[in-house]
Amino acid sequence: MEKQVISTPVIRRLPRYYRFLGELEREGLVRISSKELAQRMGFSASQIRQDFNYFGGFGQQGYGYHVGELRQIIGDILGVHKQTGVILIGTGNLGKTIASHMDFEKRGCKLIALFDENPLIQGTSTAGLTIMPMESLENFCQLHHPQAAVLCIPKHAAQQLAEKLIRLGISGFWNFSHFDLKINNPDVIVENVHLGDSLMTLAYYMHQKEEE
Amino acid sequence: MEKQVISTPVIRRLPRYYRFLGELEREGLVRISSKELAQRMGFSASQIRQDFNYFGGFGQQGYGYHVGELRQIIGDILGVHKQTGVILIGTGNLGKTIASHMDFEKRGCKLIALFDENPLIQGTSTAGLTIMPMESLENFCQLHHPQAAVLCIPKHAAQQLAEKLIRLGISGFWNFSHFDLKINNPDVIVENVHLGDSLMTLAYYMHQKEEE
Repeated sequence: MEKQVISTPVIRRLPRYYRFLGELEREGLVRISSKELAQRMGFSASQIRQDFNYFGGFGQQGYGYHVGELRQIIGDILGVHKQTGVILIGTGNLGKTIASHMDFEKRGCKLIALFDENPLIQGTSTAGLTIMPMESLENFCQLHHPQAAVLCIPKHAAQQLAEKLIRLGISGFWNFSHFDLKINNPDVIVENVHLGDSLMTLAYYMHQKEEE
Repeated sequence: MEKQVISTPVIRRLPRYYRFLGELEREGLVRISSKELAQRMGFSASQIRQDFNYFGGFGQQGYGYHVGELRQIIGDILGVHKQTGVILIGTGNLGKTIASHMDFEKRGCKLIALFDENPLIQGTSTAGLTIMPMESLENFCQLHHPQAAVLCIPKHAAQQLAEKLIRLGISGFWNFSHFDLKINNPDVIVENVHLGDSLMTLAYYMHQKEEE
């Protein structure tokens, strides 16, 4: 298959397809039509057919999709069996939660080190890794070449640290700092997470209901 | 102003505008053009003008937007000064992090109670609230009428608990259970959070880079 560029909205839907297909597989389902899958996922059937056509089809007319095969193909596109080396910086409550609960290895990543500036928690363990001091960061990156960093640090520190990490070879950020990193390097990928935006969206719809 | 329905994609952009305008305000900026705001936010200027026209304009041709006024208007639309009563269920690492760090009151909500099934942490405090046993849930809801619930519980428990909470008057969920709730009630609002999908998207783009 020739390599083609897949648009960002389609890429963003792939993990969702992968997740739903995993649930269907665990339920023991072997085949599913685009119509059924659409009902389950809240997408339209034509959206689903269009998305899957994007990377080569797989469905057979009147026969539906093979759940396990489809999941495997989407997993391969996402690269769930690859292992991008990831470090996590800031092991407060949030950082600890992310390190312990995110199943990096099921998602195409491997968490290889944790860092924190607080001497009281340096040397303790989370998710099977020992928390290292920030002073070890440079040395670690030179030795182990991590590719991405999870930032669980306050926003006032995020921009400066990100710039330092880029100089140390990091080219991807999963950013929980409540601050949109300003990176003028097209080779660096930033995935900003704003849980607050999600809460405000819920709150908006709750208020609308109250006014009805 | 007549009340009009604002489409979901526009609503989802509002918290982001609100956040950026807050940053600009803290930087001391009084006015900003749609072009400058677009550059900062990574949207197009026409997208921004279109979004703001949706709820009544506010910009003046050749004069730009007043940062503080615009932020206030968007905050009012989002209802940041309202207080939807919220309970949180499941005070493990993730639940504790959400309870302590989310600034509910700046986002149109008020966190009024925490629940967990683990007797070892019941009675302890997080975010100024005492963790209560699940057995108190029904009584609490009847007395205090919370409107929304944050679910920080494992996915196998989420669906059943959500159904129970709906019977107790809850009509909104902020769902961290790694499971899309299946709610067939159009009056119930569900905001599913899937951090794993975000990580997989980052991983995909990292793998693409490696292959270049």
